[in-house]
Amino acid sequence: MEKNISVSQLPAPLQEFYAVIQSELIEVEDLLKDFLQSESPFIHQVAEHGFRLGGKRMRPALHLLFARMTGPILPIHHVIGAVLETIHTASLVHDDILDDAQQRRHLPTVNAVWNNETSVLMGDFMVARAMLAVAQLNDLTVNRIVAETSCRLCEGEMRQVGSRGRFDLTEDEYEAIITGKTAALFECGCRLGVLCALKKEADVSEIGETALLDDPRIESAARFGRHLGMAFQIADDLLDILGDEAQMGKTLGSDLAKQKLTLPMIRLFRAMAPEDRAVLEDEIRNRLETATYVKIRALLEEFGIYDSVRASAVGHIRAAVECLDVFPDSDAKRAVTGFADYAIQRQQ
Amino acid sequence: MEKNISVSQLPAPLQEFYAVIQSELIEVEDLLKDFLQSESPFIHQVAEHGFRLGGKRMRPALHLLFARMTGPILPIHHVIGAVLETIHTASLVHDDILDDAQQRRHLPTVNAVWNNETSVLMGDFMVARAMLAVAQLNDLTVNRIVAETSCRLCEGEMRQVGSRGRFDLTEDEYEAIITGKTAALFECGCRLGVLCALKKEADVSEIGETALLDDPRIESAARFGRHLGMAFQIADDLLDILGDEAQMGKTLGSDLAKQKLTLPMIRLFRAMAPEDRAVLEDEIRNRLETATYVKIRALLEEFGIYDSVRASAVGHIRAAVECLDVFPDSDAKRAVTGFADYAIQRQQ
Repeated sequence: MEKNISVSQLPAPLQEFYAVIQSELIEVEDLLKDFLQSESPFIHQVAEHGFRLGGKRMRPALHLLFARMTGPILPIHHVIGAVLETIHTASLVHDDILDDAQQRRHLPTVNAVWNNETSVLMGDFMVARAMLAVAQLNDLTVNRIVAETSCRLCEGEMRQVGSRGRFDLTEDEYEAIITGKTAALFECGCRLGVLCALKKEADVSEIGETALLDDPRIESAARFGRHLGMAFQIADDLLDILGDEAQMGKTLGSDLAKQKLTLPMIRLFRAMAPEDRAVLEDEIRNRLETATYVKIRALLEEFGIYDSVRASAVGHIRAAVECLDVFPDSDAKRAVTGFADYAIQRQQ
Repeated sequence: MEKNISVSQLPAPLQEFYAVIQSELIEVEDLLKDFLQSESPFIHQVAEHGFRLGGKRMRPALHLLFARMTGPILPIHHVIGAVLETIHTASLVHDDILDDAQQRRHLPTVNAVWNNETSVLMGDFMVARAMLAVAQLNDLTVNRIVAETSCRLCEGEMRQVGSRGRFDLTEDEYEAIITGKTAALFECGCRLGVLCALKKEADVSEIGETALLDDPRIESAARFGRHLGMAFQIADDLLDILGDEAQMGKTLGSDLAKQKLTLPMIRLFRAMAPEDRAVLEDEIRNRLETATYVKIRALLEEFGIYDSVRASAVGHIRAAVECLDVFPDSDAKRAVTGFADYAIQRQQ
């Protein structure tokens, strides 16, 4: 559970979301602390600081809920939950270097407190620690899935950097970016929640058994995670253009400043007349300021882009919820459904 | 083989070192190219550039030679060779961010050509790609060993950063740093060279068989790698204080500039009178310039530190060579011994 927000302050659907697997999340927190152990006080200090930036533990929570929707929650799920949160936190730590973000979640970022050097190494250390925990699970399939996910995450981030300054970025290219950098890790967590619970049910030592891997719940869970991840990133990208720093707790407006086109701008550019587009592009490239954001927000409204982007996010959440059909009713399923419904409402 | 030096330009012992496993190294190169494959041209471009900085392929070469000293060289060895070189290159890429190094191996570094952002991501991508290749080997023991090595490497780097500005750094602390950041990867490569060759000999599908793991050649190879890695780092650290940029092809004198104490300075400080030491420390902290280096070099000579540091490096190489006793004579063993002897001569 996030350290700096009391659960009772969360809206009810979010409370239920975490409450159903509350004791399991405590196990995950304990493992996260273990991950930081080192004889070196410096490492411990930096790692601890990095984890405070980690956030809402949403990825482990979903992983645990999908486990519960399938069968028993096992020790392997706690480890994977900690691995997911660690990989996520490491990417935030490295993102901070990339973004020069000063403020994330109302705490100075690792990068702002220490420096680029510490941040690079801390992220590296976290990933290495996570991969070691995965290796120690002695499961080849889990190893492979996490390793593939890690590659997809990095590839998504690389594609994003490569797309900087490209104002002709297409929706397909944007989708490829966010599928990698955000959706892949959600997909992984949900997939493994089901997969590892099935392994226990089948009482097999190695999950490579083909029969297990064909269970439709695995791909359904994976698709849920992928759609939810896409929705979150789209919503996040919209907030970056619109948002209020005080409310979000992180530095905003950084995408355009980095000439990084996301869904709202991609659709806006496609909707505008070429000459108006050229003018706006020039302003973004050369004279980006508060007035530009005001102008952009008006244009987004004028062309109905808010609605269309929100509709895309909602579309992904609805597609995610449909993936739950194959699971029988349970407290975990109700918690996930409630969480998704709440996310839809927030878009409207 | 390194792209930008012709083998025929190398001294004879180095030629033999590479020649014995030349065709195997070509396989490793092909795999390294495969690792770069991506639909994204940007990723491909940056990865290609990063690999050109990789260097001498020494780690894969040692890995292959130890394989050959034990039994057959197998496809798994080519993959592990590529994994070792990729992890090494990734650490160089991230080092460049840390060190702001402008020049490495007579090529602009990844960091200098692109920026911090690209360099962070490129290093991340390379490590992820390497860990995926390891996962695809479907060997739990190899997975575990590489994951542990990666953690030790990161921990060594973190310890080093945490030691910055500490002019009271002890030899034990220095040793812990270099054991992690440099020796661990050499140890891993040599260990796995033997281990995977033994697996084939025993015709087992999973190397976790206890009998195999007890073979004394495994630990001997590991110790060889560890001692050799220590020797290389000590020699490297001495060159950083003494060296000639034009000859080495990388930015030198950076350790002191970063207030990073290495073996020569640790021993010098221990040898100096406290008041002289305090003066020198103050100069290094506040007025580090060419004259300081001139002064330090004279002091290192005066206190016999050159000799003592070189003796330490040589001591490690000799300890490494002793580890070869348990291996029967072979062209590979002669190549490794010749390489070690050559390294000793270069210290004298």
